[in-house]
Amino acid sequence: MQNHFGDILSKVNLPKDLKNLSEEELQILASDVRRCIIDVVATNHGHLASSLGVVELSIALHYVFNTPYDKLIWDVGHQAYPHKILTGRKNEFHTNRKLNGISGFPKMSESEYDAFGVGHSSTSISAALGMAEASRLKGENDRQHVAIIGDGSMTAGMAIEGLNNAGVSNSNILVILNDNGIAIDPSVGAIHKYLTDISTSKTYNRLKDDIWNMLGKMDKVGQTSQKIVSKIDSAIKTTLLKSSNMFESMNFRYFGPVNGHNLPRLVKVLADLKEIPGPKVLHIITTKGKGLATAEQDPITFHAPGTFDRETGELIKSKNQSEPLPPKFQDVFGKTLLELAEKDERIVGVTPAMPTGSSFNFMMDKFPERVFDVGIAEQHAVTFAAGMASSGMIAFCNIYSSFMQRAYDQVVHDVALQKLPVVFCLDRAGLVGEDGPTHHGVFDLAYFRGIPNMVVAAPIDEWELRHMMNTAKDYNEGPFSIRYPRGRGSKVDWACEMESIEIGRGRQLREGDDIAILSIGTVGAEVLESIEQLESNKKPAVYDLRFLKPIDEELVKSVFEKYDKIITIEDGALIGGLASTISELQSKYQYKGQIKNLGITDEFIEHGKPEELKAICGYDSKGIIASIQSFY
Amino acid sequence: MQNHFGDILSKVNLPKDLKNLSEEELQILASDVRRCIIDVVATNHGHLASSLGVVELSIALHYVFNTPYDKLIWDVGHQAYPHKILTGRKNEFHTNRKLNGISGFPKMSESEYDAFGVGHSSTSISAALGMAEASRLKGENDRQHVAIIGDGSMTAGMAIEGLNNAGVSNSNILVILNDNGIAIDPSVGAIHKYLTDISTSKTYNRLKDDIWNMLGKMDKVGQTSQKIVSKIDSAIKTTLLKSSNMFESMNFRYFGPVNGHNLPRLVKVLADLKEIPGPKVLHIITTKGKGLATAEQDPITFHAPGTFDRETGELIKSKNQSEPLPPKFQDVFGKTLLELAEKDERIVGVTPAMPTGSSFNFMMDKFPERVFDVGIAEQHAVTFAAGMASSGMIAFCNIYSSFMQRAYDQVVHDVALQKLPVVFCLDRAGLVGEDGPTHHGVFDLAYFRGIPNMVVAAPIDEWELRHMMNTAKDYNEGPFSIRYPRGRGSKVDWACEMESIEIGRGRQLREGDDIAILSIGTVGAEVLESIEQLESNKKPAVYDLRFLKPIDEELVKSVFEKYDKIITIEDGALIGGLASTISELQSKYQYKGQIKNLGITDEFIEHGKPEELKAICGYDSKGIIASIQSFY
Repeated sequence: MQNHFGDILSKVNLPKDLKNLSEEELQILASDVRRCIIDVVATNHGHLASSLGVVELSIALHYVFNTPYDKLIWDVGHQAYPHKILTGRKNEFHTNRKLNGISGFPKMSESEYDAFGVGHSSTSISAALGMAEASRLKGENDRQHVAIIGDGSMTAGMAIEGLNNAGVSNSNILVILNDNGIAIDPSVGAIHKYLTDISTSKTYNRLKDDIWNMLGKMDKVGQTSQKIVSKIDSAIKTTLLKSSNMFESMNFRYFGPVNGHNLPRLVKVLADLKEIPGPKVLHIITTKGKGLATAEQDPITFHAPGTFDRETGELIKSKNQSEPLPPKFQDVFGKTLLELAEKDERIVGVTPAMPTGSSFNFMMDKFPERVFDVGIAEQHAVTFAAGMASSGMIAFCNIYSSFMQRAYDQVVHDVALQKLPVVFCLDRAGLVGEDGPTHHGVFDLAYFRGIPNMVVAAPIDEWELRHMMNTAKDYNEGPFSIRYPRGRGSKVDWACEMESIEIGRGRQLREGDDIAILSIGTVGAEVLESIEQLESNKKPAVYDLRFLKPIDEELVKSVFEKYDKIITIEDGALIGGLASTISELQSKYQYKGQIKNLGITDEFIEHGKPEELKAICGYDSKGIIASIQSFY
Repeated sequence: MQNHFGDILSKVNLPKDLKNLSEEELQILASDVRRCIIDVVATNHGHLASSLGVVELSIALHYVFNTPYDKLIWDVGHQAYPHKILTGRKNEFHTNRKLNGISGFPKMSESEYDAFGVGHSSTSISAALGMAEASRLKGENDRQHVAIIGDGSMTAGMAIEGLNNAGVSNSNILVILNDNGIAIDPSVGAIHKYLTDISTSKTYNRLKDDIWNMLGKMDKVGQTSQKIVSKIDSAIKTTLLKSSNMFESMNFRYFGPVNGHNLPRLVKVLADLKEIPGPKVLHIITTKGKGLATAEQDPITFHAPGTFDRETGELIKSKNQSEPLPPKFQDVFGKTLLELAEKDERIVGVTPAMPTGSSFNFMMDKFPERVFDVGIAEQHAVTFAAGMASSGMIAFCNIYSSFMQRAYDQVVHDVALQKLPVVFCLDRAGLVGEDGPTHHGVFDLAYFRGIPNMVVAAPIDEWELRHMMNTAKDYNEGPFSIRYPRGRGSKVDWACEMESIEIGRGRQLREGDDIAILSIGTVGAEVLESIEQLESNKKPAVYDLRFLKPIDEELVKSVFEKYDKIITIEDGALIGGLASTISELQSKYQYKGQIKNLGITDEFIEHGKPEELKAICGYDSKGIIASIQSFY
């Protein structure tokens, strides 16, 4: 199957192979590319619907522009599968997101056609402008720079910062606004509303045309009115055209909206735009999931659908397990939040565009007014939560660990410094797997631990997550963070009675000999399992610290006194995390024993299955056992 | 002088005292407040011009709104002196920015009238919206929430994220856009241009009025044209009015522009707006420095002018020194960058709205095309620099340490992960003094050290800064960061020949007995001076590490072998910085000696003179000497 790409795609390896295709052949190519994506993603998983939505656009861009000399920057990048297939990677596409395979996102080291590495949203305009200004300084006036950005990504402030700067530049920059009304969840906010307004039938352009037409007719009426009309005309010209459009008020020339699935039209428009210098926006309307009926109907599920039938598009559910599985941490978060919210009306939820991924749906169903999806806007999400906290609300602000990096300053400046009691739930903490280095949540323990007034907690399992959320809601001396990984935990009977736990208090999980293992987070459960497999009569003691900050110094001190050998383990970067913390205490308490640190050394970890990546980093079960054995 | 506040201000202690003042008395109050600010800042220093620009606005707000029940959130906050004077702090105003005195910024713990703590730009809309939504949920429908934000701050993405969210809320939120065309340096970018366009005589509003007038006249013309005109009318109504304005396209009701120094008009407009529910923007035009001729003429200098004559407004220069002073690090950066840029045309500068503060003026004078002031937009600045680096330019991106927190994710995701050679110069690193906790640059060593592929360097003096910049420009394996403090260094003859230094190589500064001091950055120079004052025949050895990352492990190891006692010292947070690094190496190399760490413990440090704050933290000269003495 992998070698059959359809009549046209089988002849296209690189963009140069597109140039001589007829209009009809380009259309067939679109269908071939779509088929290729569906076939691979149906079994391989990955980001389906976004890529299906930009097949025509990707073909048109490579047809019209001179890539890789001209630069294409795909915002976020999970829509770049057609681009990858068209730029020499169709034969590797079946390795997408697999260990040592191609990345699910554009990546500079992978291909010269990937002008910029992406993964987080809203970086494309800034990067494209940087390239465009570089070209201008180098006198490469013919080079084109195209940022392709979704309407969801357009709500993140960084995109507007880029527009604001680009609008006054003389650079050759084309921003293609790929408007499908949805990011991962439906787009929200005023910009989305505005885009919908200008895209509906009474568009700005229609209006513009209508007015011109009407003014044309006015030629026939008398002198007086002609004078007035000419005044209106010039007023409209200078103001309506210049600033009636949000993008034009930012000094971009605005074109569109154009149907993003009309390939000949796209080719024509892009060819025209290539000749227009300076900053410009092309607004195209696309359908997320285009070409696969189930995906068009349910683009949220089909954003990254898992296994599905490549012909019917129906999801293939895994066989019923004979035993029930533990729930996802996400769902435990969502259901627990609902329970807490039912008992305390001060509790609210805040999410930057991830209501589904974070499982806010339980609370949204019952208390829609109390969950705030603020759009892709982590900075705003944090300070908005701070504003609520300053008014007596208990805000649970849930942000994926790697996206929280976007709001580091707001956590420091608007929450911690002001001692505001915001609860930060960091989802997708640790190695996330196939999404790779842009999405691994490995720095949060380090960057949060350094912030004064911050509590840093990580549950070992679902019960502890519930206890920690319950404890956090009553803490009012500052921010309280709780990190947990993507996916399932270990407790089928997750719905325990919620307890309050003492902040900064760890616990011993098992007694042992000679070696003590200090862990934080769910990796502690893996440690316990690994020790069961250990074929030895000596087995290490295990301690779950629960809190990285405040760290349980008493417990650590008692471990220092009792053991000559310590292993620390964490699903995160060693620098600044648990490893550093224990080293600092070693220094403070003059501990003379040996310490081994398991976790992520000072490098970015590539994509692959979580277990594969943990194995590479040496803290999968095998790595844990090996570390123990070599230490005895 | 401090007790003479003028006839009206002397009677006003709290906003309630304003309520019965006549229009004329309010005007006198404005003049009294202005006098009070000028008198104090003339000798005390502080942020002058911004505060002078909002005297009328501050009075009008407290006159019209029911503070502190109604919430005023001042963006950035250095314009809040009139607010502070009117809210119970006129008698403490002379302690502004002094140790244990009132803060130069609004601060929740200082007054119930300070609804939110600020310092960094563009947080006000998010915080106000959080409060507004909290009020809505609590049924406090009468409570008003006002964010006062400058046109410069409006360019930061976070402000737009807030607008985007607020635009679809039903909250009582009023955004007052204080448009003076200048932040610290003149505002830049498309939004600034747009605001200027709508504020000039052919404003949107004028146009609107003109068109209405003209359409009125059309009643007199014939049937046919009347029909057409009515069509135009409705088209304009639905589109021009709804979306011809940038703010209205974001679903805010837009009012203005209004002269922000016309107090009766402001009072009238604010009183009207109080009755209009939902999100709204009031655009006011003010003059930065209003009321002091020299400040109006040169608002950049008078942003924070130092000592000046309170009557004439003329700057008072300190007496000529008999000996020349060492230059500011800022100027050494600026002049060195120019030298490098003269030799290599790939070198460019990037600043987020701090060209003057960072001393880019030297390069801007000679190569205006090669310095990019991108507006208050740290996120964009970093990724823009990354885009340039990906196109072969050598970008020196200069951001104040505490503002770099805004771009942490971009440094990780757009630069370090992609191994792009951007040079980050972190100005204002360490304790900055009077600006206080929002501006101290104390976390950068920690948050940069955790990022893979990053070089973290800090010069001990001006020569080293030059060597490090020269070394950084040739490094092309990833980002290279150089941190240095605000103010003067120690080398009068700063303009040394530039050298290349080995990355990751520290050096011994002096031999010594029993104790080794490991330092990074300019604090090393203070250590050397302190040791000179030490009355003892035993004196410690001193090592300047130069690089926190990669750390010179060989050097540290040799110190471990030679000394039983080590003192680390850094102008930054201990957690994650040099202290942590040495602890980690202690663990790795099984060092059995004792270590003392000087630097900033796990807390936010308040405002005061840098020397006072260092003394509190225990690493001023006295603290260094005491540490050494107690360790021998």
